[in-house]
Amino acid sequence: MSRFLNVISVADAVAVAEKIAPMPAMETVPVVQSAGRVLAADISADIDIPGFDRSVVDGYAVRSADTTGAGDSVPALLRCIGRVAMGTHDTALSLGVGECAYIPTGGVLPQGADAAVMVEYTEKAGDTVLIKKTASHGENIILRDEDFKAGETVFHKGRQLTPRDAGVLSACGCATVPVAKKPIVGIISTGNELVPSTTVPGPGQVRDANATMLAAWIAEYGCEPKLYGVVKDEREAFEAVLDRAVPECDVVLLSGGSSKDDRDMTARVIATQGEVLVHGLALAPGKPTIIGKIKDKPVFGLPGHPASAFVVLIAIVRPLLDRMLGQAKPSLRTVKATLSINIPSQRGREEYIRVRVENGVVTPLFGKSGLLNTLVQSDGLVRIPAGFEGLEKGSEVEVILW
Amino acid sequence: MSRFLNVISVADAVAVAEKIAPMPAMETVPVVQSAGRVLAADISADIDIPGFDRSVVDGYAVRSADTTGAGDSVPALLRCIGRVAMGTHDTALSLGVGECAYIPTGGVLPQGADAAVMVEYTEKAGDTVLIKKTASHGENIILRDEDFKAGETVFHKGRQLTPRDAGVLSACGCATVPVAKKPIVGIISTGNELVPSTTVPGPGQVRDANATMLAAWIAEYGCEPKLYGVVKDEREAFEAVLDRAVPECDVVLLSGGSSKDDRDMTARVIATQGEVLVHGLALAPGKPTIIGKIKDKPVFGLPGHPASAFVVLIAIVRPLLDRMLGQAKPSLRTVKATLSINIPSQRGREEYIRVRVENGVVTPLFGKSGLLNTLVQSDGLVRIPAGFEGLEKGSEVEVILW
Repeated sequence: MSRFLNVISVADAVAVAEKIAPMPAMETVPVVQSAGRVLAADISADIDIPGFDRSVVDGYAVRSADTTGAGDSVPALLRCIGRVAMGTHDTALSLGVGECAYIPTGGVLPQGADAAVMVEYTEKAGDTVLIKKTASHGENIILRDEDFKAGETVFHKGRQLTPRDAGVLSACGCATVPVAKKPIVGIISTGNELVPSTTVPGPGQVRDANATMLAAWIAEYGCEPKLYGVVKDEREAFEAVLDRAVPECDVVLLSGGSSKDDRDMTARVIATQGEVLVHGLALAPGKPTIIGKIKDKPVFGLPGHPASAFVVLIAIVRPLLDRMLGQAKPSLRTVKATLSINIPSQRGREEYIRVRVENGVVTPLFGKSGLLNTLVQSDGLVRIPAGFEGLEKGSEVEVILW
Repeated sequence: MSRFLNVISVADAVAVAEKIAPMPAMETVPVVQSAGRVLAADISADIDIPGFDRSVVDGYAVRSADTTGAGDSVPALLRCIGRVAMGTHDTALSLGVGECAYIPTGGVLPQGADAAVMVEYTEKAGDTVLIKKTASHGENIILRDEDFKAGETVFHKGRQLTPRDAGVLSACGCATVPVAKKPIVGIISTGNELVPSTTVPGPGQVRDANATMLAAWIAEYGCEPKLYGVVKDEREAFEAVLDRAVPECDVVLLSGGSSKDDRDMTARVIATQGEVLVHGLALAPGKPTIIGKIKDKPVFGLPGHPASAFVVLIAIVRPLLDRMLGQAKPSLRTVKATLSINIPSQRGREEYIRVRVENGVVTPLFGKSGLLNTLVQSDGLVRIPAGFEGLEKGSEVEVILW
């Protein structure tokens, strides 16, 4: 194994990752649990929504022509011929000239009516209603199919559903909805220095923080993490856990120890059981990254530094997960803000800077990528493309929020 | 019941809601499942993190003074006295003047060393290592406790945990973590016009979209929705479902039908079983809102229009949920952007406008609050405080993203 990595660009690495992404699988979930999931088929309205012209106010259904010129001082006098009941359609109720009917919000507009007047602008005197406001044609009503037409595609495949979307799916008659199955992402921690979080580290040991961080992020991103614990740098143990994880998962992440020996072991084992496709990225932090596959399952060797592992997760693993979810656009949250100081960068590699965002101002947190505290204090990442020498103070930058 | 509502300000309504919020309850969850949850106690580091001075590069541990003036043409020549093994601390390994030791990333810095030099700037010739770069004191190392000191408070109670926080909790030795229990939020749909999503609506009927939308939002906000289905406007049925829901839930939402009769029935039943505290808000959309309590549980009557219900959920119910979660700050996502056109408003009521946000520009979607489609097309809400006559084109506004 060469001492120097044969680095490739982030764009090339993403292309490799996307190419080995397994095909999206599908499952059906209840609509109430669908928010955050990615739609696996187009959804159309089965009926017109709403199915009838309805009032959006409590008041009187009128023929707008009957109210022309009506106002506080000169009200229109209309004869009230009835009351619209909720949840039913009384087809006998039909307004002639000079007539009106009481209508509750959401009630079916009676035959002949073309507007509704809020009760606040009316006064009832026996069978006569004083209308103190001119209603225009269509005022205060929602027309049949104004929301959605029967057969109209309401949501396209690949959309990440929101709570509001879930409501619309209910309106469209869906009790369940087809969504992308959550990819199962295995996480194997490697490195002789790592101990589980429940252990008090001995001399030279550190607790495994990365696996938890990766698992929590993966769950938040709509996938299913599966933790395999810490494996020491012994080839047999390493191979045994891969033998178990590869069939059980859709993707496997080797959350690396930080040393070169550990990375070399990772690469050797992937090469033995499958194929190493990428070893080293023009990415800072995140250079010592491995992309491979075993039995057609993508296997990543992530760097050991927490910040590096997280950057690789977002820059390289995420596009593969998007592909597996059939996601039309990444569900990363981003925000534009102004840079408070110059950020120098090295041409030829893509760089991700941890930043804090406050009141629209972006301040970089230059910290060692081996530290956890800058990860926690930061609000997100600013990406500097490979061809840039840096970003200038005062420029508008896009922050990937975490 | 008066025909005109006795409206109160949003601030007063929020104060009422917060005052009747039940005390936060606590539970313990595995750290890997803690992202998104609200911390119920301060968390401190049980040990120094890291527990020793460690290298952040693969290379050679050195005494920086030995490398003064070293460069490509005049390397420092140091004698390699050993190799740092990962996951252990060899206390016998100690550097004297002119000595160095191979150290992997994450390895324990040997006694006497105060810096590490990347392997790329070195060359090994037998026992001698050529160091081609001057190392400064502390270069490429992380000091013991540089991340967190033993006993230091790492996270404060009330913080909504992120995936990165979960990693830090693992580093602090937590396998589980105390968090706020998810409040159980009951949702009862009322209204003679409503049918479940699985039913094809008959004349005058509409499918219940609001309950699903509310439930999905509540789940996303870290609470537990509990759906009670559609109840017709019959007092007995209404009271029976409240008798069931109030003991089972921490908060009950009556997702209203849209008519005045339905709202009046809601208010009457809350008044019979408990107390109506607020009936009518100076809020648009969202005026016909009821806040009450039954057996010390908050009970809300939400407006029937989908957009109105959603605005009340965010403006009034959310602060109560934050209080119940012990959340230090609301977990609403907001973004600042520039308004594309003037938005007029009516003084004396707080207004929430649905908007689309594209490339930092905010465009209002003026749609009837009874429609679902503007809810789906919008990216969030812009709030216009009660004292404002509107917002001006070109001004910077804060958008509450949904």
